[in-house]
Amino acid sequence: MIIVMKQNAPLTVIEQLEQEMRDRGFQVDRSKGSSKVVLGLVGDTSALDERDFLSNPWVDKVMRVQEPYKRASRAFHPADTVVDVKGIKIGGKKLVVMAGPCSIETPEQIGGIAKAVKASGAAILRGGAFKPRTSPYSFQGLGEKGLDLLISAAHKENMPVVTELMSADKIGMFLEKGVDIIQIGARNMQNFDLLKAVGRLNVPVLLKRGMSATIEEWLMSAEYIMSEGNHNVILCERGIRTFEKATRNTLDLSAVEVVKERSHLPIIVDPSHATGHREMVPAMAMAAIAAGADGIMCEVHNDPEHAWCDGAESITPETFDDLMGRLKQLAPIVGREL
Amino acid sequence: MIIVMKQNAPLTVIEQLEQEMRDRGFQVDRSKGSSKVVLGLVGDTSALDERDFLSNPWVDKVMRVQEPYKRASRAFHPADTVVDVKGIKIGGKKLVVMAGPCSIETPEQIGGIAKAVKASGAAILRGGAFKPRTSPYSFQGLGEKGLDLLISAAHKENMPVVTELMSADKIGMFLEKGVDIIQIGARNMQNFDLLKAVGRLNVPVLLKRGMSATIEEWLMSAEYIMSEGNHNVILCERGIRTFEKATRNTLDLSAVEVVKERSHLPIIVDPSHATGHREMVPAMAMAAIAAGADGIMCEVHNDPEHAWCDGAESITPETFDDLMGRLKQLAPIVGREL
Amino acid sequence: MIIVMKQNAPLTVIEQLEQEMRDRGFQVDRSKGSSKVVLGLVGDTSALDERDFLSNPWVDKVMRVQEPYKRASRAFHPADTVVDVKGIKIGGKKLVVMAGPCSIETPEQIGGIAKAVKASGAAILRGGAFKPRTSPYSFQGLGEKGLDLLISAAHKENMPVVTELMSADKIGMFLEKGVDIIQIGARNMQNFDLLKAVGRLNVPVLLKRGMSATIEEWLMSAEYIMSEGNHNVILCERGIRTFEKATRNTLDLSAVEVVKERSHLPIIVDPSHATGHREMVPAMAMAAIAAGADGIMCEVHNDPEHAWCDGAESITPETFDDLMGRLKQLAPIVGREL
Amino acid sequence: MIIVMKQNAPLTVIEQLEQEMRDRGFQVDRSKGSSKVVLGLVGDTSALDERDFLSNPWVDKVMRVQEPYKRASRAFHPADTVVDVKGIKIGGKKLVVMAGPCSIETPEQIGGIAKAVKASGAAILRGGAFKPRTSPYSFQGLGEKGLDLLISAAHKENMPVVTELMSADKIGMFLEKGVDIIQIGARNMQNFDLLKAVGRLNVPVLLKRGMSATIEEWLMSAEYIMSEGNHNVILCERGIRTFEKATRNTLDLSAVEVVKERSHLPIIVDPSHATGHREMVPAMAMAAIAAGADGIMCEVHNDPEHAWCDGAESITPETFDDLMGRLKQLAPIVGREL
Repeated sequence: MIIVMKQNAPLTVIEQLEQEMRDRGFQVDRSKGSSKVVLGLVGDTSALDERDFLSNPWVDKVMRVQEPYKRASRAFHPADTVVDVKGIKIGGKKLVVMAGPCSIETPEQIGGIAKAVKASGAAILRGGAFKPRTSPYSFQGLGEKGLDLLISAAHKENMPVVTELMSADKIGMFLEKGVDIIQIGARNMQNFDLLKAVGRLNVPVLLKRGMSATIEEWLMSAEYIMSEGNHNVILCERGIRTFEKATRNTLDLSAVEVVKERSHLPIIVDPSHATGHREMVPAMAMAAIAAGADGIMCEVHNDPEHAWCDGAESITPETFDDLMGRLKQLAPIVGREL
Repeated sequence: MIIVMKQNAPLTVIEQLEQEMRDRGFQVDRSKGSSKVVLGLVGDTSALDERDFLSNPWVDKVMRVQEPYKRASRAFHPADTVVDVKGIKIGGKKLVVMAGPCSIETPEQIGGIAKAVKASGAAILRGGAFKPRTSPYSFQGLGEKGLDLLISAAHKENMPVVTELMSADKIGMFLEKGVDIIQIGARNMQNFDLLKAVGRLNVPVLLKRGMSATIEEWLMSAEYIMSEGNHNVILCERGIRTFEKATRNTLDLSAVEVVKERSHLPIIVDPSHATGHREMVPAMAMAAIAAGADGIMCEVHNDPEHAWCDGAESITPETFDDLMGRLKQLAPIVGREL
Repeated sequence: MIIVMKQNAPLTVIEQLEQEMRDRGFQVDRSKGSSKVVLGLVGDTSALDERDFLSNPWVDKVMRVQEPYKRASRAFHPADTVVDVKGIKIGGKKLVVMAGPCSIETPEQIGGIAKAVKASGAAILRGGAFKPRTSPYSFQGLGEKGLDLLISAAHKENMPVVTELMSADKIGMFLEKGVDIIQIGARNMQNFDLLKAVGRLNVPVLLKRGMSATIEEWLMSAEYIMSEGNHNVILCERGIRTFEKATRNTLDLSAVEVVKERSHLPIIVDPSHATGHREMVPAMAMAAIAAGADGIMCEVHNDPEHAWCDGAESITPETFDDLMGRLKQLAPIVGREL
Repeated sequence: MIIVMKQNAPLTVIEQLEQEMRDRGFQVDRSKGSSKVVLGLVGDTSALDERDFLSNPWVDKVMRVQEPYKRASRAFHPADTVVDVKGIKIGGKKLVVMAGPCSIETPEQIGGIAKAVKASGAAILRGGAFKPRTSPYSFQGLGEKGLDLLISAAHKENMPVVTELMSADKIGMFLEKGVDIIQIGARNMQNFDLLKAVGRLNVPVLLKRGMSATIEEWLMSAEYIMSEGNHNVILCERGIRTFEKATRNTLDLSAVEVVKERSHLPIIVDPSHATGHREMVPAMAMAAIAAGADGIMCEVHNDPEHAWCDGAESITPETFDDLMGRLKQLAPIVGREL
């Protein structure tokens, strides 16, 4: 941690701050610039918050030298983490595609889609039973019944499932039904109590990036989960909120490379929520893999025009099959398989 | 709801969409522009989602005519809502100031601050017992013990308290201890299960704006609470996330006027979290009242440099007292009292 | 244009507005919703500004039915525009790569880089002679001398050049020296006098997206150029400003698809300025082509560590050659050639 | 300047970088943290760009200790700058109000408005003759004729004028007609050639903040003007671009305090462009003064519904007069006069 003092900071203030830091176990290096004094703290600073130093009125700026995350950091764990879900490896050489409808509607719907996406090469079935909706008057998902339909359709196709958990009180239900990957949605990325709760489980967690979360905050949320013991975290970029309204969100594909550099965790991309328009999904899925992602998560619906939720961003099984064909051609060019 | 069809949309598609809407009970008006057909839906469209129409590939754009919220809307409730907390009225002529430390630390700390802010004219005591922190390694609040200290200090000064609830499983504790206003923090503004849970209570809720929430989304979150029966919602603007990093967030004071126009709910402003710098708090508190807010929420600490949390944005009781003096002068100029 | 009147708007106000619109040559359709009156204007509304209607206090909302641009719109020009620069076609089946240093430094530097990028398959040489720098104390480019060095190096390799014009008073110099493509930088995207000036030329213009420009505003800036007669406009996405600071800007690759849908103009992507980090350039270049871009613009420097400008985002000729090899493999998968 | 090297950076790389810095005249301090080496450069670093160091692949992060601006910095010029325009002092104890129409239309319009705003206490007359419009098909201003009308109306009321310059080739005209304050608009805030051109004049410059400019970039643009010799720069906050669309822009009132702390230049606020809605203008004008601004710039029109430009955000002379009355009451509370 580097602390820049304000110009003319009194020596007594500087010495007192140094003493406080020494008392907390840090070595302190002082250097004198042309107009300002700079302090360098040596030691494990992960428990320190830069903002805490700013409470001293003579402190001008603070900069971390080490990243604030440890378990999520590549510095502490240089090798890529590969999350194993019933034999499907996320984060390895083979790309992983998660596909399915936004929300589970009927046995025929989820069953038909599961069969189709499996046939096209999807490895994991997605589908929402509990839906976070902006309006209390919108369809909120089928709940437990939806979960049953999802699991049943997945068993028939021998696929693991991923589905969103919105509240800790449903964890028992999720475990009992056998959800394979628990999704934490963008709106709950900083629901810290929920993060801690899934951190105590033995089930992989798919952590979506918050709508306005920096990559550092996202990795800190992964750290929350990991600090409770669960190291099987998969990150999912799904677009961030910007001023541009031509797309639902702005897909931040550079985040893939940033995450790969800073962390060992696998990262996939959701081109459906990112764009909000089905016409853009295939191109953005291709771009995500070209950018180095470990896989994609894609909304597929047999009848998008009448989907109960997010039909605008759902592609048909036919479009999905076509996309999978092109992804298979793309994979080897970026050193992957599909 | 206005639906603009794409150029060359087939007549059969248009007629089918019209029929579907008529089947759902809407009257449909069709008009023909120079190149595009426009449909107008007449009826209660609050349960419709604009995005649902976009799942039709021949739909170009959709625009709401009515706002998507009802209970939170001024159209449905023209008079200002005044929330009464033990006789203190929030949203009336008299401005309300909520003050106290970011986090509760010791009996002496919270007791001393309570006494000081009460003496300066604060009506409600704030203080955090459960703290949402970006890092799992940062101080997470004293928890239940903190709640006890807060309530005890408030009783001594005869002040109601406001404190943050992060998880529904603590609601019993909050009710039992007698928390007067339950705060839902920015990170939980779209934690819909939590909103529904506090919507079923009989306790006023202070709903902070999410870091990247539009005003419409914020009012929809209020609608979540109100749709469950709890109409005592107080909004709190606390800054939004933008590209500018000179302040912690960007305080959006125009939101006050927008909320006042669209909704009947009271709105206060938190200049502490918005700016992140104590030097800016008094000026932004003044600006908030000049902009028409119903009050402010302000972090006050007796020893900001050694605060356990957010000392950088905490003002001292002396600065607070000075600010209150100036707010009292300002109030009548904007037609208020303090 | 759809105009939604406020609830309870007096009939006389509505009739007067209708009359004013009829006087301006529009047909007006009035419909009555459950609580609000909606007017539809039929006719060529491209000269109308939505905001103008908002000056009427009884107008609630306005929505365009037609896009505000005409010459730039695909609706008015369905076929893709292909810009021909000395036989190199931008916007056709063959991808176009523009490469070169951020700023021109010495004859050896620009000559060596030109030779290398040409050998790897770049079609057009880029290089800055006039540099827009945030600080007046930073290197501002070699100016006219730089232009001479660029042209001379390009002639040797038989490549056209693209270089930035910052001020209309240099147009004479650019024409005289024979600049093949004039670049308008992000900071000047709404320098309307400059847009009009290059609109009167017979030279292709590369129009970078402004740092916070919506896609619609960007196309309106293209319209400025085209409305003066110059239809040879190439768009260049180069990242937008968001809250995320891990990258210099946030590359908005969905913009490629949006532009392709709304406009007939070619669009390329600049992964260098977008990311600001050379490690990310190859992955983002691949992603751009996978997303459907017509080409890329890439900063290449023989000695990035000692580049006079933006070395952090410049790749070496070796990395560039490697990237070109992979782009050649990628091209056919997205139906292109390189 | 503080340079943090990456973990495991080779000693030879570090020593070479140190030597390069010493060769450029800096003293270099090296410290060793727990895992990384940190270099501190001592000397005048204003000509250095942080990004230049990032071109070294072994450099992890860079932080400035000194701000990159000098002439605009309060550190170099502790006393407030007061700009004198024909005896009207901007930046002193007395608040300054600039008012007038968005665009100049007719002699009667500008004459009537000038008379009214002068009577209400406005000190300076604003009005646009050259208008930057998003669409080439929108009214672009009356040009030279507009300038004549503005100057003539102002002379009658004995007021100085402020009006926007969009292109350096009009400087001669502006000087000849006697424009008192030259406005540089938000879209041209980084039109560096234009900044340099007005920097060589002896006329005060009103520099609006760019739509997505950080405060640091804004001060760097002021530095461009000042570095050419013209120190009479007035800053004008006019809202920044964010995700929120309920207002035209998001007024960033905290910028006032940030600018006051970092710079000695006067700063005023434009509540008209910031909000885009006339109903919000008075409240935001009050808030701006409460926040510490040196004045406001406000759009006033005698017939906003039929204004040729931006009527939606223009207030009437009556509303303006009422606002001035309240600003006069507010001024002493924040230690000012009006």
